[in-house]
Amino acid sequence: MSSVPEIDLSSALRRLRELKPLVHNITNDVVMNVTANALLAVGASPAMVHAPEEAAEFARAASALVVNIGTLTAAALDAMLLAATSAARHGVPWVLDPVAVGVTPFRRTAVARLLEHRPAVIRGNASEIVAIATGDPAGRGVDADVASAEIADVASALARKSGAVVAVTGAVDFVTDGARTVAIANGHPLLTRITGSGCTATALVGAFLGARCAPFEASATALVLLGLAGEHAATGAPGPGTFQVRVLDELAAITPEALAAGARITRG
Amino acid sequence: MSSVPEIDLSSALRRLRELKPLVHNITNDVVMNVTANALLAVGASPAMVHAPEEAAEFARAASALVVNIGTLTAAALDAMLLAATSAARHGVPWVLDPVAVGVTPFRRTAVARLLEHRPAVIRGNASEIVAIATGDPAGRGVDADVASAEIADVASALARKSGAVVAVTGAVDFVTDGARTVAIANGHPLLTRITGSGCTATALVGAFLGARCAPFEASATALVLLGLAGEHAATGAPGPGTFQVRVLDELAAITPEALAAGARITRG
Amino acid sequence: MSSVPEIDLSSALRRLRELKPLVHNITNDVVMNVTANALLAVGASPAMVHAPEEAAEFARAASALVVNIGTLTAAALDAMLLAATSAARHGVPWVLDPVAVGVTPFRRTAVARLLEHRPAVIRGNASEIVAIATGDPAGRGVDADVASAEIADVASALARKSGAVVAVTGAVDFVTDGARTVAIANGHPLLTRITGSGCTATALVGAFLGARCAPFEASATALVLLGLAGEHAATGAPGPGTFQVRVLDELAAITPEALAAGARITRG
Repeated sequence: MSSVPEIDLSSALRRLRELKPLVHNITNDVVMNVTANALLAVGASPAMVHAPEEAAEFARAASALVVNIGTLTAAALDAMLLAATSAARHGVPWVLDPVAVGVTPFRRTAVARLLEHRPAVIRGNASEIVAIATGDPAGRGVDADVASAEIADVASALARKSGAVVAVTGAVDFVTDGARTVAIANGHPLLTRITGSGCTATALVGAFLGARCAPFEASATALVLLGLAGEHAATGAPGPGTFQVRVLDELAAITPEALAAGARITRG
Repeated sequence: MSSVPEIDLSSALRRLRELKPLVHNITNDVVMNVTANALLAVGASPAMVHAPEEAAEFARAASALVVNIGTLTAAALDAMLLAATSAARHGVPWVLDPVAVGVTPFRRTAVARLLEHRPAVIRGNASEIVAIATGDPAGRGVDADVASAEIADVASALARKSGAVVAVTGAVDFVTDGARTVAIANGHPLLTRITGSGCTATALVGAFLGARCAPFEASATALVLLGLAGEHAATGAPGPGTFQVRVLDELAAITPEALAAGARITRG
Repeated sequence: MSSVPEIDLSSALRRLRELKPLVHNITNDVVMNVTANALLAVGASPAMVHAPEEAAEFARAASALVVNIGTLTAAALDAMLLAATSAARHGVPWVLDPVAVGVTPFRRTAVARLLEHRPAVIRGNASEIVAIATGDPAGRGVDADVASAEIADVASALARKSGAVVAVTGAVDFVTDGARTVAIANGHPLLTRITGSGCTATALVGAFLGARCAPFEASATALVLLGLAGEHAATGAPGPGTFQVRVLDELAAITPEALAAGARITRG
């Protein structure tokens, strides 16, 4: 165990379970079921709504909004922009997951437009954060090609430029607001052998934002929680299928006290 | 165990497994995989088809149709209306799941249009049934804010007005055709901690409709079966992930005799 | 154990795990999560991308392309045609899964257009292969109505006509290039009680194509692997839910040596 004094992991999780925040997700078709289940397991109330006809209304009524471009389409982008605009206008915090942003112009343009609506948090892997920060296409889809340790400076600069907290996941995760940075060592390699780990991290950031955590605290708590759930779930798991199921069990089972005790978070 | 004489649970399940009815689903993107697996587990043959170009043809060829508006889009609504029209014309019974109907005008209008095509069953939670019955927006998305016990009268009135059997799920479920009402006490709280429990209930109603059960019998049998599967699955489950997997195991394993023996169904 | 000398199952799996090929999937909404997880479990790197705006770019950058029409829409068909054109132009091998092709004109026309772009492999059940080969609508959706043993000749003729390797799955699988045919007896009945078994077979064919296996070898290896994973997963599984989870465990756990030792493949 290690900790960073100003982040109260236990209180954040306790508040999430008390408030059961309604989290509006416009996310990708691959992980929609997994992230809805993760949100339910942790104690939030997910709504997966992506029609342009109602995206703004849902975002306004929610406690937080999650936008994930994994299986981006033109129609989904319309809904995302409407929802992000509505969230920004009504003070609903939102988190952006720029999946594979560096890979095609379609994604780069979409992310540039979404960033105009000021997400509270950007959560990506190293390739994605580099692609946003530098404008330079990086990596191959959703993989993280850049060593996370080298990425903290890039993320910090992006945080200062965008005004968002930037959360970079990898073997070690980094969360930065441009002034402060923490490193999170929780996690397990099996998290890279199931689809939707990154997307689940982003959804959990949304849950903690919905529980009125500040963006820096929300991001750090979500990443510690998912990493710790992965560590517990891996114990004795015969493979990635069983592991994925147990991650959901753990997201429901981990107590506020166990979260604080199991955290491996340090100043970055 | 308790029972209602005119509902023969064992025969209904036996017939489902013999007939393996083809059930056409136009359902939401979150639960599509889960409900397809539930239908396969129970012994039905699911087809998930939502293109307007072929929805009417599929509905006509199916033994039953399931329509669920969870992630409604304009294109999906077109397909639903075409399928419902085709089903009504060709005598294929269909069930409507009006997910979060009260929350936006987009959903209220969609449900009003769908109801014109006379579903055999409407399956919702209390908030949704109240929203349809009264035109009054209710609840927050897919949650059930209204105590189920108070809802039986509203459901009964809706059944008389719409001509559909109304199935309301909650801590206690109610099934009513406007003249008769049964209450079903099977179930487990973990069913509220996984996504798609309600949608699975609706899909199972479709399976029993496809097995030529009358709408009242189909609805009651489906809700007893899912509730009982939940009770069995919860035994020793460490959390919602494992629970969800075991529910599928139980839908396949429960015998017609065990279904009748485990039922907690009474006149409402 | 039985084997066919010219197919080196161990080397194929070893190469897949070394190369971790990027597999681009335009697949159906029901199985997207399952097939992404299966690809990750076996050691490939899946990308599920179906926007027409970027489908051609992704296909060009991938090691293989998987096209599956399970929940076909007009927009998805646009993306499939763009991706298949791009794959064919840039020498990226691709596999077609013609789900329920015989059931509606919409699907028949789509498959006819896709076949113009020369897939390396067509993977279907007996009904689907008959429907393509004869133009005669067959079967009821995704079920296999035709005894697989009678289908080998039809598949062989289709392979000669189309230039694709044809892989037919059923109680016994057949793989043919029109000159050679192998029969694969691996598998378990529980594979028919979960959704997406056929689609997973197709995705695994794509993974082996991406690992630079020739189409005949890629198809045979994929079907032996999934069948063997099913055999292992079924041992002690209480039902289809647990079975499905364990299949993913097994896809990760089976070694190249175990694959060769467990194969039941013979000249057809």
